[in-house]
Amino acid sequence: MKSIGNTFALLVITFAGLTSTRAQDPLPSWNDTAPKKAIVAFVEKVTKEGSSDFVPPAERIATFDNDGTLWCEQPVVELVFTKDRLKELAAKDPTLKEKQPFKAALEGDREYFEKAGMKAVLELVVATHGNMSQSQFETEALEFFKTAKQPKFGVPFAQTAYLPMVELLQYLRANGFQTWICSGGWMDVMRMVSQEAYGIPPQQVIGSSLKEEWVEKDGKYVVWLLPELLTICDHAGKPVNIDLHIGKRPVLAAGNVRTGGDIEMLRYCQSRKGPTFQLMVNHDDAVREFAYGEKNNESLDAAKKNGWTVVSIKNDWKRVFAFER
Amino acid sequence: MKSIGNTFALLVITFAGLTSTRAQDPLPSWNDTAPKKAIVAFVEKVTKEGSSDFVPPAERIATFDNDGTLWCEQPVVELVFTKDRLKELAAKDPTLKEKQPFKAALEGDREYFEKAGMKAVLELVVATHGNMSQSQFETEALEFFKTAKQPKFGVPFAQTAYLPMVELLQYLRANGFQTWICSGGWMDVMRMVSQEAYGIPPQQVIGSSLKEEWVEKDGKYVVWLLPELLTICDHAGKPVNIDLHIGKRPVLAAGNVRTGGDIEMLRYCQSRKGPTFQLMVNHDDAVREFAYGEKNNESLDAAKKNGWTVVSIKNDWKRVFAFER
Repeated sequence: MKSIGNTFALLVITFAGLTSTRAQDPLPSWNDTAPKKAIVAFVEKVTKEGSSDFVPPAERIATFDNDGTLWCEQPVVELVFTKDRLKELAAKDPTLKEKQPFKAALEGDREYFEKAGMKAVLELVVATHGNMSQSQFETEALEFFKTAKQPKFGVPFAQTAYLPMVELLQYLRANGFQTWICSGGWMDVMRMVSQEAYGIPPQQVIGSSLKEEWVEKDGKYVVWLLPELLTICDHAGKPVNIDLHIGKRPVLAAGNVRTGGDIEMLRYCQSRKGPTFQLMVNHDDAVREFAYGEKNNESLDAAKKNGWTVVSIKNDWKRVFAFER
Repeated sequence: MKSIGNTFALLVITFAGLTSTRAQDPLPSWNDTAPKKAIVAFVEKVTKEGSSDFVPPAERIATFDNDGTLWCEQPVVELVFTKDRLKELAAKDPTLKEKQPFKAALEGDREYFEKAGMKAVLELVVATHGNMSQSQFETEALEFFKTAKQPKFGVPFAQTAYLPMVELLQYLRANGFQTWICSGGWMDVMRMVSQEAYGIPPQQVIGSSLKEEWVEKDGKYVVWLLPELLTICDHAGKPVNIDLHIGKRPVLAAGNVRTGGDIEMLRYCQSRKGPTFQLMVNHDDAVREFAYGEKNNESLDAAKKNGWTVVSIKNDWKRVFAFER
């Protein structure tokens, strides 16, 4: 597999590591409000040998949702990627422009998808992500990250990683945690950028994916992406995929408010025997990022009910992005 | 997840680390024959910075089959486990003793399974591995490793790990490799013992498994094992599952002669751009272990054709097990 050459986030981290502030404060982009205090207290508690809350390094698993938790999800990167892929396909085969659900997707016809439902969405995903070799797909995803830009900020998507969360990942790793992504986003897309954006290697990225097979194509064996869904790694799919890929309950899990898709992962984390920590990011900063919530408020309700830590971007993050001056 | 308390293999490693021989020779249980020389030459080559064969640490993935490659497969541990589970079930529900395919399995009726085929085998697996919570299954597997013994050697199965292979795993890790298991064996069984036997954490174990779901049972949410197969991680299933769990082609892959089930993984490894290494273990030592081959000889044929390194247990291993005097 290939990976993008963008080392922006890592440069930021390296630079931060040289300042004296960083040496004293592992989370310099966080305000000294309750969430930061709770995180630091938790990490100190579980890493203190001899304490009753001590968690052995082998058990220190932390899982993070990606869209809206580690980077911007307005728009959702996976949807931008899918539309880009579709445009490419339509350029090669113009009949797609007149065929549903492709026509609706190309024209941004939300109403069509609301009526046609999941079946139409899947048809779209399969057409744009399947029927090619894994290597070919990786090339497409890599190219996307090199060229596509986040519309509001005008930077490549990898640079919309939240600096406070990049610091949190680093802080956890420095304390013996293994950091994982567990996201509804497309696994093979995220894997192209996870190392550069977050310092997370591809093998620690769990996401949605298609079924694959090992077949001979033009005299060479390749891993081939079938036009059939393997998993949607959202809601109840998260605990299931964490068990498949890790086989241990996370000690710390982080998600965000938008669809309620992270509730099950945080609940799974909390069901672990011993100390655990759950973080729910709330998007309430229309100036520096975006402000959006949930119609039914279920993520914040679940956080309140279960004692999860809610992060207000507006109040708890000193700086949101590395590209901010 | 829990893990067995058996630290036998790790003790052996620790002790070996204290001897002066070990300091000079990373593979003391290997004879100084061609395979050992080839392994050491390969590792030195790919870890030498500035060399054209240099492989960056992030790409140093090594995948090992388990049964017959890392530990004894006479009998296959998974089959012993399945039969043990079935006996437990039959003790609770005696009608199973009169019902196929359970009757045949309990009576060791091979002929029945040869006729009934894969469908009957799957029915057996599903009945013994499914319809329970993941935690419950882990408890069963853990108990198995505590009590069951390998019939020829009279030791717990974890102690039938091949010492030369444990040394090889260690040697690779000391050289920046990440070591993985990719086996047709049952993932959730191997994960209970992989750390103790091989120093491989559960999240680096890929294997066969059932589908799961996140459901409420008696007022608590649990990961539940469904009576339906997710994957058989053998033959063409190996490249596919490596891509799912790792997302990178291995630089080194090891399998063994018996069913031809590792050929695809070794071929996948070899298809990686850049230097690669393939190892095929041949069981030809009836005195110290077992001697068995393949009817159609396909693993050795593939090794010869593709230039893979064949290990003769008889000739290339100085010592097979840690429990040998």
